[in-house]
Amino acid sequence: MRVERERLDRTINPRTVAVVGDAKIRNYRWLKSMETFQGPVYSVQVDPNEIPNIEEMGIPNYSSLLEIPDEIDFVLVAVPRNVAPFILRHCVEKDVAGAAFFTSGFSETDTEDGRELQATLTDLARDSGLALIGPNCMGLYNPGVGVRFGPNQPSGFEGRISFAAQSGAHTGDLIEAAYDAGVLLGKAVSFGNGIVLENADYLEYFAGDPKTDILAMYVEGLQDGPRFFRTLRETTRHKPVVLWKGGRTEDGGRATRSHTASLAGSTEVWDAACRQAGALQARNLTELVDILKALTLIPPFTGDGVGIAGGSGGQSVAMADAFSTAGLRVPTLTDESYAQLEEWFSLVGASFRNPIDMGSNRTELEQIFGILDRDEHIDAIVMQIRPRPQDDPDRELLEELVEALVRSKERSAKPHIALLHSPKPLAHAEAIREISGMLAEQGIASFESYDRGARALAAARNWYASRANGG
Amino acid sequence: MRVERERLDRTINPRTVAVVGDAKIRNYRWLKSMETFQGPVYSVQVDPNEIPNIEEMGIPNYSSLLEIPDEIDFVLVAVPRNVAPFILRHCVEKDVAGAAFFTSGFSETDTEDGRELQATLTDLARDSGLALIGPNCMGLYNPGVGVRFGPNQPSGFEGRISFAAQSGAHTGDLIEAAYDAGVLLGKAVSFGNGIVLENADYLEYFAGDPKTDILAMYVEGLQDGPRFFRTLRETTRHKPVVLWKGGRTEDGGRATRSHTASLAGSTEVWDAACRQAGALQARNLTELVDILKALTLIPPFTGDGVGIAGGSGGQSVAMADAFSTAGLRVPTLTDESYAQLEEWFSLVGASFRNPIDMGSNRTELEQIFGILDRDEHIDAIVMQIRPRPQDDPDRELLEELVEALVRSKERSAKPHIALLHSPKPLAHAEAIREISGMLAEQGIASFESYDRGARALAAARNWYASRANGG
Repeated sequence: MRVERERLDRTINPRTVAVVGDAKIRNYRWLKSMETFQGPVYSVQVDPNEIPNIEEMGIPNYSSLLEIPDEIDFVLVAVPRNVAPFILRHCVEKDVAGAAFFTSGFSETDTEDGRELQATLTDLARDSGLALIGPNCMGLYNPGVGVRFGPNQPSGFEGRISFAAQSGAHTGDLIEAAYDAGVLLGKAVSFGNGIVLENADYLEYFAGDPKTDILAMYVEGLQDGPRFFRTLRETTRHKPVVLWKGGRTEDGGRATRSHTASLAGSTEVWDAACRQAGALQARNLTELVDILKALTLIPPFTGDGVGIAGGSGGQSVAMADAFSTAGLRVPTLTDESYAQLEEWFSLVGASFRNPIDMGSNRTELEQIFGILDRDEHIDAIVMQIRPRPQDDPDRELLEELVEALVRSKERSAKPHIALLHSPKPLAHAEAIREISGMLAEQGIASFESYDRGARALAAARNWYASRANGG
Repeated sequence: MRVERERLDRTINPRTVAVVGDAKIRNYRWLKSMETFQGPVYSVQVDPNEIPNIEEMGIPNYSSLLEIPDEIDFVLVAVPRNVAPFILRHCVEKDVAGAAFFTSGFSETDTEDGRELQATLTDLARDSGLALIGPNCMGLYNPGVGVRFGPNQPSGFEGRISFAAQSGAHTGDLIEAAYDAGVLLGKAVSFGNGIVLENADYLEYFAGDPKTDILAMYVEGLQDGPRFFRTLRETTRHKPVVLWKGGRTEDGGRATRSHTASLAGSTEVWDAACRQAGALQARNLTELVDILKALTLIPPFTGDGVGIAGGSGGQSVAMADAFSTAGLRVPTLTDESYAQLEEWFSLVGASFRNPIDMGSNRTELEQIFGILDRDEHIDAIVMQIRPRPQDDPDRELLEELVEALVRSKERSAKPHIALLHSPKPLAHAEAIREISGMLAEQGIASFESYDRGARALAAARNWYASRANGG
């Protein structure tokens, strides 16, 4: 990477921030987003209609970056595209560490003007060594230092997951989705057209970032495929990388060209290269968050045998299908396990082959978990828990199930996850969120459907198994 | 079918109901479920500990079916398995139309006892012509006449969708899920081991039921494959049939054997036979409800070109990928459409290739819809709407979008659907439910994710296209 690591480090973890060109038409989105920033924030704005509003917000305004009487680590630029090269020159002259350009209208417009302007920006930035993020992007999110690109984004925590993306909308969505799921991000970068720093650069940066344990990326197209996959292979020796590829289809690929001027490339080649490089793949935002949750909460395991407790007949079939389709197995138990289950399992109306139907055996939860823990066919333990609101007559039962699962997890070295299956998750949203939070506090990942739980558990297992095989 | 249609008709649309063997241990589930039944309900119970409780509920109790001074259409039997043949004999003697046996412990237990008892029941019922549902099932749900198998199930409406399933849990879940999604069921039958009436019988019955427009089934295994697929092919000439197959995997197949003693069979053969017979397939409960909603609300269309409005860059890519993956296309528009869009579309920061990024063009909604309606490349119109709670500052914008979509749908012959994409659907559950309800009232189907909307729209299109091709 032509930009020095130290410089990108300062950009992504800034101690000072300047916003150039924020305006009323955007409801001062950028300055409001920086309200949570822990260091000084400066504004640069020359429009006399804007300056009083900015000063009313208590933010010192300057007519030029060069006038700010402080060293600047990170600049957010939101000016018309024709002014962008001028501001970039000031960034270089001021020797700021880095700048993100929200400004768009470059190569993604597929016009001569746009391409020329982009070339100008690229040349200027590359010569200078400036860490330029974008253009055509939302820039930086670092909740630890309070840098945000949306005025309602959460902050005040330091997660261990970093995300880099060729989409501001997906980055914004991931920030909301992850926080709501209890998955804490450390840093997120939306880098749009990526004219100076692109996918491979962010991958390399976060691979070497001691505060990043897990990487996630949304990729539309690569500027240097071989370098990206080389870096990916090196990274997955130490850290899991979850990739969400945009433009997997012909129509999606056409959309990436309009969006970030990216060539999406062949899906088959992409999938094969990801597999070889040991990366995990997510198909959409929901799956990405599920996998990040799984990697955060599920302890290492390498076997593929899943023992499932809970759920009656048809649900047992659906769970077995889901885990099996995801690449895991729902095997029969050992003879010893069946001998123990037979001692007290009521014959009629409930199966205990695996999945174990707990319909009529709620009182024997401890024994069932003990048997699954000791069974050598079983590598991971899954429990279905029906989410029920506080006022549900069966709420007490639910709490018993949660407590039994937590106790089992404390005793066992095998991973435990919960499936919070409801036929109407939106109607039960509050209960699902509450129970999911209770479980997460105890270190147990939970998922809202069989398929989602199965795919997330399989992703975690794939990661741990590939590490055990030497990566 | 050996059971006469008229007899099954009377069973599924009963005017009188008897419950045999309901008990306190189940909190009188069956009798409580029948509280909504529009005709007389009788109880049969000989246990002196139970009778006072039953009479307190205001339900007349008899010591035998034979003593009930009324003709009985439907009997729900919840007795121990050894008593089941005795009760069945009484059903025959009393000449009831049909009976559902909640009682389990037959072939699904894989024991000699269980198999023998099942054979006894089968012989008795077949000789008599009685419409026996089950055993090992939840029986009947008919919200129009108020027959339910769960005391909280919705009733008091007559839907046009019928469901038959080899799983009581899935039937119960579908009843809840469909109602919550605004999809109204007409009848649902959980028939467990299906010893007298099995998949092909229910398919044939609902195919000929004038009150059923759409059929859905959860199938674990077929007793007579050729007959089932022959009936299926005949049915799909007139009515769409959505099949959810349990036991698609080896592990899932083992679970179906424990559950309903069904042999799941080969998935490849199943998929090919379904395709040939013109049936739609759903992979899980959520998808089944989505497809039923699509078939209910989406008007006929046969082309595969989807025009998408709303969403910015990365979201446009994700939507194009989702619809393309589901088997539809997100094509470029006609030159004429682009010429019109160019007249006023702001050049910078938003693409209008398709998907059309509406980021900065909210005021031109009418024009965009008009263009999509006239564009001959476009067969269906999709709009992304971000669900926002009542107190959201952008709520007004949301309502404008909804109104514009509704107006467009009123004017256009092309189907319109909405994607209510939220990064945190559980947190926005109330808004999603509210907006989804608003749209459904206007005849517009909405879905909570790109993938779900895409798969549901593709299913509806497949159904209409196969009809257009002569089935």
